[in-house]
Amino acid sequence: MPSPLIKTEIAAAAVGLKTSPLSSTPAPTVPWKSTSGQNKRQKFESVFPVLRDELIAHFASKGMPKDAIDWYTRNLDYNVPGGKLNRGLSVVDSVEILKGRSLSDEEYFKAALVGWFVELLQAFFLVSDDMMDQSVTRRGQPCWFRIEGVNLLAINDSFMLESAIYHLLKAHFRKDSYYVDLVDLFHETTYYTEMGQLIDLITAPEDHVDLSKFSLDKHRLIVIYKTAYYSFYLPVAAAMYMCGIPASTTTPNGTTSDPYKLALDILIPLGEYFQIQDDFLDFAGTPEQIGKIGTDIIDNKCSWCINTALAVATPAQRKVLDENYGQKDAAKEKTVKGVYEELKIRDRYRAYEEGAYQKILGLIDTISEEQGSDGSPVLKKQVFKSFLDKIYKRTK
Amino acid sequence: MPSPLIKTEIAAAAVGLKTSPLSSTPAPTVPWKSTSGQNKRQKFESVFPVLRDELIAHFASKGMPKDAIDWYTRNLDYNVPGGKLNRGLSVVDSVEILKGRSLSDEEYFKAALVGWFVELLQAFFLVSDDMMDQSVTRRGQPCWFRIEGVNLLAINDSFMLESAIYHLLKAHFRKDSYYVDLVDLFHETTYYTEMGQLIDLITAPEDHVDLSKFSLDKHRLIVIYKTAYYSFYLPVAAAMYMCGIPASTTTPNGTTSDPYKLALDILIPLGEYFQIQDDFLDFAGTPEQIGKIGTDIIDNKCSWCINTALAVATPAQRKVLDENYGQKDAAKEKTVKGVYEELKIRDRYRAYEEGAYQKILGLIDTISEEQGSDGSPVLKKQVFKSFLDKIYKRTK
Repeated sequence: MPSPLIKTEIAAAAVGLKTSPLSSTPAPTVPWKSTSGQNKRQKFESVFPVLRDELIAHFASKGMPKDAIDWYTRNLDYNVPGGKLNRGLSVVDSVEILKGRSLSDEEYFKAALVGWFVELLQAFFLVSDDMMDQSVTRRGQPCWFRIEGVNLLAINDSFMLESAIYHLLKAHFRKDSYYVDLVDLFHETTYYTEMGQLIDLITAPEDHVDLSKFSLDKHRLIVIYKTAYYSFYLPVAAAMYMCGIPASTTTPNGTTSDPYKLALDILIPLGEYFQIQDDFLDFAGTPEQIGKIGTDIIDNKCSWCINTALAVATPAQRKVLDENYGQKDAAKEKTVKGVYEELKIRDRYRAYEEGAYQKILGLIDTISEEQGSDGSPVLKKQVFKSFLDKIYKRTK
Repeated sequence: MPSPLIKTEIAAAAVGLKTSPLSSTPAPTVPWKSTSGQNKRQKFESVFPVLRDELIAHFASKGMPKDAIDWYTRNLDYNVPGGKLNRGLSVVDSVEILKGRSLSDEEYFKAALVGWFVELLQAFFLVSDDMMDQSVTRRGQPCWFRIEGVNLLAINDSFMLESAIYHLLKAHFRKDSYYVDLVDLFHETTYYTEMGQLIDLITAPEDHVDLSKFSLDKHRLIVIYKTAYYSFYLPVAAAMYMCGIPASTTTPNGTTSDPYKLALDILIPLGEYFQIQDDFLDFAGTPEQIGKIGTDIIDNKCSWCINTALAVATPAQRKVLDENYGQKDAAKEKTVKGVYEELKIRDRYRAYEEGAYQKILGLIDTISEEQGSDGSPVLKKQVFKSFLDKIYKRTK
């Protein structure tokens, strides 16, 4: 079996990347180095078939029958690519910003691999969440478990998407000093996301409405655990480990800080802001903007909108919400939307957004980019600014 | 937060174990050191509440609401203890045999913890397999997903059982030199088990009988991946890592061997033998012996019995099997059993068992217990003999 390094070289060659040692100067002609978002995405997407083929080749090497090989291939192709890829791309972007230069081909390939691990983790969650929520479509196609012949096998299929992460992580990163940090990070993030999913499921079951279980505090807890850790902290922290940022930095004037704690303290509010925006757009965005029809009200979702409404509703308005929320009925949905308008949810959102934006800017500003006394790489404001810019006042 | 070592001491104290440094001599009065199987089991069982409480304390420390804390507690209590615990106990037994002496209290606690990780992994598989198989009972109680209010939430509950392994592994073993080996071992074993589950599910779906998909080769592949790795290789390999057995041993006369490969080469046939015995007992064991009523025939299971029958059936017998296997009908089940008797499945099993037993004995005999030239710990025949003795000619 080839060594992980050789494997990486083979894989990089397979996507048409010139492999080069870590110390080499970057080749400026490689397309993904363009600032064009479109090219960035295409380059990142081109890595997926490489890892898919590697997973399938390993699976086949175990003597697995053809129908199983076809099944796993279809599972990977159906569920992993096809999303917005923001989380995966964030890993690559963050590594580039932290290194402050273009990446070598091997560096790019490894950053993109870790980006795809985040996408695999997301696929694991989405396939299983769709079953638990009994959803109908995902990314414009039927949910995987609804495909003829799949049904409950989707449970095991979701497991295999998760296991693929650790198989590839070992194959490509076992010899890197940060291997164990990446493994621990993915474990911890996975566990947190599952904790968030548990509170969400028992707070807002699709088939039993009880608004007394809702609150802005509960919403915040769900958002932080179910979304913010894996969508925001995970990509950045993974990039930080890959760039050798140490757990503790001491500046020449003696100040000590934990860059991972600092990143977490910025990315959790950022993730919260992102999800609140998502909740708001589900109510206020047009289908043209958000690419789907919002269903949070009829699905009894523990959304920022309902929780904000509950926090300020009069007893009469509360009664209307209790009687109309979470039901598969367009008229009732419209009634809830009416209460939202009465309660000026749009204005409240604009005020929230402005406050969140300013608060996050302030947090970013606390980052000292001063080099530590041991000369190790440091955190950079731009990692977070770049995230915030993508989110602020988005309408889709 | 206390360090992992301190945590282990607190935890050991909580089960009434005298904590002691690794180098201390063992205290011979601790009950689990008795040779009594009953006491061994009780001592092992007494570690479960310790780890359960640690998981719940960590979960609660994240600000999780009371209903979520109660839910996770119930998930752990309902699904993790209550089995035969053979897999978990194998870790403790193997560590004792490999060290060739009684364990210190801390050594015992850590071996038992890893034993419970194997049980947690099994719980993760059983909760989800029961959903995929639409099973009714497990360990004499309703399957978890059938409990009022649980249903599809059981998917996320199974995930949390898996995540608990890595949380505890990090909390108690992060500083041990073998930490990364244990993590890799659990990952690889999990992935293999999921591969086995995939082939099993697409070969023998509960609701669609197609015996042309069955074969003894397919059966073997399913058994190895779905059962043998996690039930046999995992506990022993984990014990080997904990005892510091190196990946490669060179004896003074220059022979080099890989003890993990050797263990795998014995434990995979052993696991295969165990599962074939299990399949045979499902058909031939009395309910008093096996503690349940065998349902492999009506459940369309890809069992050793049907595969052996298919391999030797005449065209007429094959027709009977095609028409009667895998259906919820007692008369048809009886017809299949009649064909099994005609085909002398009992005699074939006895011949298989004798051959497997002799073959495994021969494999065990290839182990050299000679100390390597670097003085590192070596593999011992007794690890495997002890396993084989527990299995050979068992009737339950």
